[in-house]
Amino acid sequence: MDETETNISNKSSRKLSCICSFVDKVKKFPGLARRATWTVGKEDPRKVVHSLKVGIALTLVSLLYLLEPLFKGIGKNAMWAVMTVVVVMEFTAGATLCKGLNRGLGTLLAGSLAFLIEYVADAPGRIFRAVFIGVAVFMLGAMTTYVRFIPYIKKNYDYGVLIFLLTFNLITVSSYRVDSVWDIARDRIATIAIGCGLCLVMSLLVFPNWSGEDLHNNTISNLEGLASSIEVCVMEYFNDLATPATQDESSEDPIYEGYKAVLDSKASNETLALQASWEPRYSRFCHKIPWHQYARVGAALRHFCYTVVALHGCLQSEIQTPKSICALYKDSCIRVGEEVSKVLRELAKSIRNNHQFSPETLSNNLKEALQDLDNALKSKPQLVLGSRNGRTPNTPVQVVPHQDQKLEEETRTSFSSVKNDSFSSRACKSKEHSRETPKKVLRPQLSKTAIISLEFSEALPFAAFTSLLVEMVAKLDLVMDEVEELGQMAHFREFKDEEIVVACEKPKINISQNDLPSYGGE
Amino acid sequence: MDETETNISNKSSRKLSCICSFVDKVKKFPGLARRATWTVGKEDPRKVVHSLKVGIALTLVSLLYLLEPLFKGIGKNAMWAVMTVVVVMEFTAGATLCKGLNRGLGTLLAGSLAFLIEYVADAPGRIFRAVFIGVAVFMLGAMTTYVRFIPYIKKNYDYGVLIFLLTFNLITVSSYRVDSVWDIARDRIATIAIGCGLCLVMSLLVFPNWSGEDLHNNTISNLEGLASSIEVCVMEYFNDLATPATQDESSEDPIYEGYKAVLDSKASNETLALQASWEPRYSRFCHKIPWHQYARVGAALRHFCYTVVALHGCLQSEIQTPKSICALYKDSCIRVGEEVSKVLRELAKSIRNNHQFSPETLSNNLKEALQDLDNALKSKPQLVLGSRNGRTPNTPVQVVPHQDQKLEEETRTSFSSVKNDSFSSRACKSKEHSRETPKKVLRPQLSKTAIISLEFSEALPFAAFTSLLVEMVAKLDLVMDEVEELGQMAHFREFKDEEIVVACEKPKINISQNDLPSYGGE
Repeated sequence: MDETETNISNKSSRKLSCICSFVDKVKKFPGLARRATWTVGKEDPRKVVHSLKVGIALTLVSLLYLLEPLFKGIGKNAMWAVMTVVVVMEFTAGATLCKGLNRGLGTLLAGSLAFLIEYVADAPGRIFRAVFIGVAVFMLGAMTTYVRFIPYIKKNYDYGVLIFLLTFNLITVSSYRVDSVWDIARDRIATIAIGCGLCLVMSLLVFPNWSGEDLHNNTISNLEGLASSIEVCVMEYFNDLATPATQDESSEDPIYEGYKAVLDSKASNETLALQASWEPRYSRFCHKIPWHQYARVGAALRHFCYTVVALHGCLQSEIQTPKSICALYKDSCIRVGEEVSKVLRELAKSIRNNHQFSPETLSNNLKEALQDLDNALKSKPQLVLGSRNGRTPNTPVQVVPHQDQKLEEETRTSFSSVKNDSFSSRACKSKEHSRETPKKVLRPQLSKTAIISLEFSEALPFAAFTSLLVEMVAKLDLVMDEVEELGQMAHFREFKDEEIVVACEKPKINISQNDLPSYGGE
Repeated sequence: MDETETNISNKSSRKLSCICSFVDKVKKFPGLARRATWTVGKEDPRKVVHSLKVGIALTLVSLLYLLEPLFKGIGKNAMWAVMTVVVVMEFTAGATLCKGLNRGLGTLLAGSLAFLIEYVADAPGRIFRAVFIGVAVFMLGAMTTYVRFIPYIKKNYDYGVLIFLLTFNLITVSSYRVDSVWDIARDRIATIAIGCGLCLVMSLLVFPNWSGEDLHNNTISNLEGLASSIEVCVMEYFNDLATPATQDESSEDPIYEGYKAVLDSKASNETLALQASWEPRYSRFCHKIPWHQYARVGAALRHFCYTVVALHGCLQSEIQTPKSICALYKDSCIRVGEEVSKVLRELAKSIRNNHQFSPETLSNNLKEALQDLDNALKSKPQLVLGSRNGRTPNTPVQVVPHQDQKLEEETRTSFSSVKNDSFSSRACKSKEHSRETPKKVLRPQLSKTAIISLEFSEALPFAAFTSLLVEMVAKLDLVMDEVEELGQMAHFREFKDEEIVVACEKPKINISQNDLPSYGGE
């Protein structure tokens, strides 16, 4: 009896809490909605401007219907112009152009087929005409739908093909009951042209937003985000492990913040590059700006980014090389990290200012930093000897006593578990969730404990860190190549302009001297 | 004079070659188009079926216009139903449902506002009414456009808001010249309901394609692709470096092939999960299938994949640890790689067959493989001592003589440059392109030569490889967690069904014994 009662009271209390949470949600909704609405406008005021532009465009196109003289010319079909404005007007000029031209071309093509339909519509026999219309609609419907699956069409002309089908159906089906199909075709082409024209004027001439500009800025901010990510990552690796714990409270990891955008940039970059290729914008000397090259820089950057993610993984690893050993190579590693960041910032600057960069100077600095790291590894071979179980005969003095190490490791383990949680908010949530399920308590993440309990050579994690740093430099080369090619294709200003300034930092004779041996080496 | 002549002949020959290439393109076009068209249908026959479905739906909806009794009921506005079918019919049931319901709701909402407009339309004064209509169109146009920027709305109801604005404008503007707005609103709601209904029937009942099914299959194939990627990657690392050179000719790297889809899965996974959440499909016991959890498995898999990319980077690195040293740890490393692949395949199997997996068994195998690797590293400390410059006192016998090493390294360098080119076709193309530009010849990839010429401790690359393998096991844990949670949320069959079979391989008592020390370790 008691159990049933508890069950019932449990059920009712669950219902009550369910209702409570719903009421709570409803109460919170206005605040949430207000905040969401406010954030959108605050983050990008161009969105507010765009909304007003759409409002104005719609009001203007409505005049076709409202003003007597205009209405007389076009008639009821003016509504198609209104619809066109609603559908075609997009945030950026490139997107509007792409959609507008697609809609225009599709309508024009379908409209020009009207002569064929007009010819058949004159034929005798209603049944024959009905069958002809049905067959034509079926054929064209199936064919255009199939054509839309072809990747090239899908990428560039999807909307155009859709509108072609729409207009074709409109004209064909109408022809059954209307005397002159030509009139419909003409009206539709005219009204859609008016609508598209108005949209293009509003997006190209009134406070235009360019997809190309967004792509340009995204590329720059991605480069800079990666640069700061690498800097923080290398610094944090060598600094006290206490720092990330405090940063945890501010919800997001600065390293993850830096490269997150790069990882997810594929879809947006490609869309922006496609839209930008429709935009009538030119660089110096009236050259077309090579937007697809921006997308390629983005692709190289993403491949580079995977190494950064792996480097970040080193920070979150369960086993860590003792700090005393890491400290020996700290300066050289930090220098490599800084040089890589500097190169990325230099590339960002080069794209921002539309001037070419000097690959030689950047490469030389990188080379020196690598040489420095190599020297450090050669002169202090503790890294390759620092094994916890003391089997190696010539253990250096710097190795911390066992007691300290264990203490240190315990702290590290607890910290690393915190850090692991913060890796991505998604992962974090899933863990919180999984803690609630009772089954998870029984399985305390076996493989993780296995990893911690293993006595891997402690040098391994640091060796991996160093190796990834070197790997990163190799991949940076691909990014530099792509940016250099971008500079050539977009006709960036030659580097010569600023050569004198750079020459102060690094005399030119040095560069060529540094180059010679590497030429010989190949 | 000669120069001018050469210039002119150069120009004319360039024009000629330009025309030739254009003619060539035109000639090749039919073949290319035919092949592209054929490929689409061959790769996914469902697309052919879908095209036919659209054709049939369009023909059926055209009957509203063609058949006398139907036309009498609905009238000219039947065209809206045709348009609805063209626009709403999507490839999967989820996408059609999402679009259809959005269109229906938007129309209904805007239509229900007609009473307000009807009220104002009765007001005296054409100018007042025109001004009212203009202001209403402006306000609603700006507001709805702004609302569409709010992420939650954009994700779920973007199309609905667009259709709301479209219908609202249609009704409001029409109200200026039409007697009864109610009639328009009623007609529009009715025709759009007919169109949407037909689309839903065609997509849900006639050979339906489910977004959820695609998501399910994608997740499985991603898991399996990663598994084979890791397997090939580890095997290739230890095998002869000659193998990849021959594979190069067949254009694509099998390792890259395996994980490529995972890297690019973010956008498609999230879209599919969103569409699938609209689909009325249920798992056992009528539970809603947790599609968002599939997206989370995908996210965990992507994070896991970044380590695989880094591992692949080890293969393409310019400096490599001598094979003689690697060979010492070959078996243990391959075993870890195989165990990771096995776990991924097990997870794929678990999702495919809708049954839960046994995390303990999988974790134990992984743990054993890791322990094995650890033992190998401990028992053969050559890895941490194998440095080329022979500064280490106790150089083991296995180290190859210097002469051989250099030869080996030269071959390796030449191979690695080939491999690097094949890394991604994009990178490959950019390099080919860059070779054409004269400036690139002057700069023989400085940092790359720098890396090769450096005398890094040769143990580093292999240490990185091993460390990444261990890292991978740690990240695999997150993937296992997510898949396990998916199993619980989707009410997969309990693992108990097959427990006896597994028990043969690994007695249960062993598992608990293995667990105990790790419990203590935490």
